Amino acid sequence: MVQAASVRETRAPSPGAATLDRLTELLRRDLDAVNALILEKMQSPVALIPQLAGHIIAAGGKRLRPMLTLAAARLCGYRGDRQIALAAAVEFIHTATLLHDDVVDASDLRRGLATANAVWGNKPSVLVGDFLFSRAFELMVADGSLEVLGILSRASAIIAEGEVLQLVTSNDTGTTEASYLQVIRSKTAQLFAAASRIGAVLAERPRGEADGLESYGLNLGIAFQLIDDLLDYSAAQAELGKTVGDDFREGKITLPVVLAFERSNAEEQSFWRRTLEDLDQHEGDLEHAIGLLRKHGTLAETLERARSYCAAARAALAPFRDCSEKHALDEVIDFCLERGF
Amino acid sequence: MVQAASVRETRAPSPGAATLDRLTELLRRDLDAVNALILEKMQSPVALIPQLAGHIIAAGGKRLRPMLTLAAARLCGYRGDRQIALAAAVEFIHTATLLHDDVVDASDLRRGLATANAVWGNKPSVLVGDFLFSRAFELMVADGSLEVLGILSRASAIIAEGEVLQLVTSNDTGTTEASYLQVIRSKTAQLFAAASRIGAVLAERPRGEADGLESYGLNLGIAFQLIDDLLDYSAAQAELGKTVGDDFREGKITLPVVLAFERSNAEEQSFWRRTLEDLDQHEGDLEHAIGLLRKHGTLAETLERARSYCAAARAALAPFRDCSEKHALDEVIDFCLERGF
Repeated sequence: MVQAASVRETRAPSPGAATLDRLTELLRRDLDAVNALILEKMQSPVALIPQLAGHIIAAGGKRLRPMLTLAAARLCGYRGDRQIALAAAVEFIHTATLLHDDVVDASDLRRGLATANAVWGNKPSVLVGDFLFSRAFELMVADGSLEVLGILSRASAIIAEGEVLQLVTSNDTGTTEASYLQVIRSKTAQLFAAASRIGAVLAERPRGEADGLESYGLNLGIAFQLIDDLLDYSAAQAELGKTVGDDFREGKITLPVVLAFERSNAEEQSFWRRTLEDLDQHEGDLEHAIGLLRKHGTLAETLERARSYCAAARAALAPFRDCSEKHALDEVIDFCLERGF
Repeated sequence: MVQAASVRETRAPSPGAATLDRLTELLRRDLDAVNALILEKMQSPVALIPQLAGHIIAAGGKRLRPMLTLAAARLCGYRGDRQIALAAAVEFIHTATLLHDDVVDASDLRRGLATANAVWGNKPSVLVGDFLFSRAFELMVADGSLEVLGILSRASAIIAEGEVLQLVTSNDTGTTEASYLQVIRSKTAQLFAAASRIGAVLAERPRGEADGLESYGLNLGIAFQLIDDLLDYSAAQAELGKTVGDDFREGKITLPVVLAFERSNAEEQSFWRRTLEDLDQHEGDLEHAIGLLRKHGTLAETLERARSYCAAARAALAPFRDCSEKHALDEVIDFCLERGF
């Protein structure tokens, strides 16, 4: 609870609840078409595929990444309908990533982390993820742009690299801020960047505009993940009925911890090592961890970093003509920053 | 032991040990280039990626699928060097499939199936597989043929469908021969078919030649998997120090079992249900299973099916001009049929 207050103190008075509503409303027709295409392309005579895919795609909900493609295409003045298939491809890649991220190892089971679903569903999750990933490429091939195929195949390789790097740095309290940033830049921000860039590519706009939209997406994605990692230690999340402390329980090393560990005294360091490296965790440890993050002000600092990346995203958007798409994309930045409060 | 004898009885006198040597020798220079490219493209600043990928790629060994691409391109008279990158892409897709096939579920652990490596390595296997799969698409994009991209993205989706179908039919003694064939046609033969077809596509040969090579690959791939499934019950394999009975222990339903179950009396049916559906297996059950397969002659029959598919593969090759590539591809058929004896 104090934690939530602590974060709240650090921010300027809220400019009002930013939501994705404006964007969603603006893109309503395109978004309906994307959802219909997603539904069509996840079909298979093998019934388990649409069942499992439908479950996670429906749960995913907000369609933030495909909306970036849709909005970027319009912002660049594109008037065709190729953005529909490419937005669906982006969502399929995102969904495949989520499914593969759900895979658990026996070591996780020993830590008591796995849900029943996760325990029983490794293999179907992997294979249905592969199916959706392949479908994403089929959609891009049908679209026919080698440039788009290049952007999204490269992004996919970088995402996988980021996920492996995250695995390697898990449970390592010696993880540097640079390593952490490389992880979130790769695993999260890369797809935001690619999704935004292909909008400009569709509109055949000069390279500068594509670079601008890529920069918007990249910075937005980094901020998005920073906030995600901060919220995992936030009491405000708990109040909303969301899970708190998942990263802590897994020993995932996120920025609030990286910064706190650097400033720790010997006793605090041994606390972090016991809980995050050895995963030897007891009642009250999460609360103690939050207390340490507060003491060192690292949640507030993480929020400040997110603000900087948001400012960079906003700056990348600045050169574009004033229009409702630009305003909506601008509001996405506020949404990323404010969600959870 | 009797099992091996039983299978041996059913075949004509061996025409001499068919190997992949002729093909490997013929393609030596191309194959060296493919191996060098594979080594280059599996690199990553994240060290675990080349470590893990190198382990499985080196272990994979024979490079059968990429050799199909190389040989098909030459058979069609192609004289450029695009086949190198596409053969590497084919091998990456194959490797990704292997890595994802190694993923285990908690249920498998309970059956005592998992190796230490498999137990600890789910997540890295999945993510490194994703990386290689993405790299495969990057290689294809750099090559620039949308037709090739279409062939391999479609093949990848079908492979994933086949793997899911295999999962669904596991432990189901009611699996039909049609279901089984759909599984192996998708999960195995599809990549053989695609690898062969893209050779003709590279050479820009008429559609008929591409169809012919695809048919060669498809039939070869089906025969290859039939023999694989037969060998899992073969004492000859045990003599070679290879594992026997993996499919049985996992409750995987392959053709020898499908055919034997159809012909079973009530007592035999309850044996198959106990061992393959309930996975309630005891000392001597594998030997008893092999005895039942012998009694009903289903190993010999599986070999006969494989022979038919080999004949179809040979027929698909017949219209091509007489040359050393054709002879080598013909010898691959013998190799698939004879291996393990």
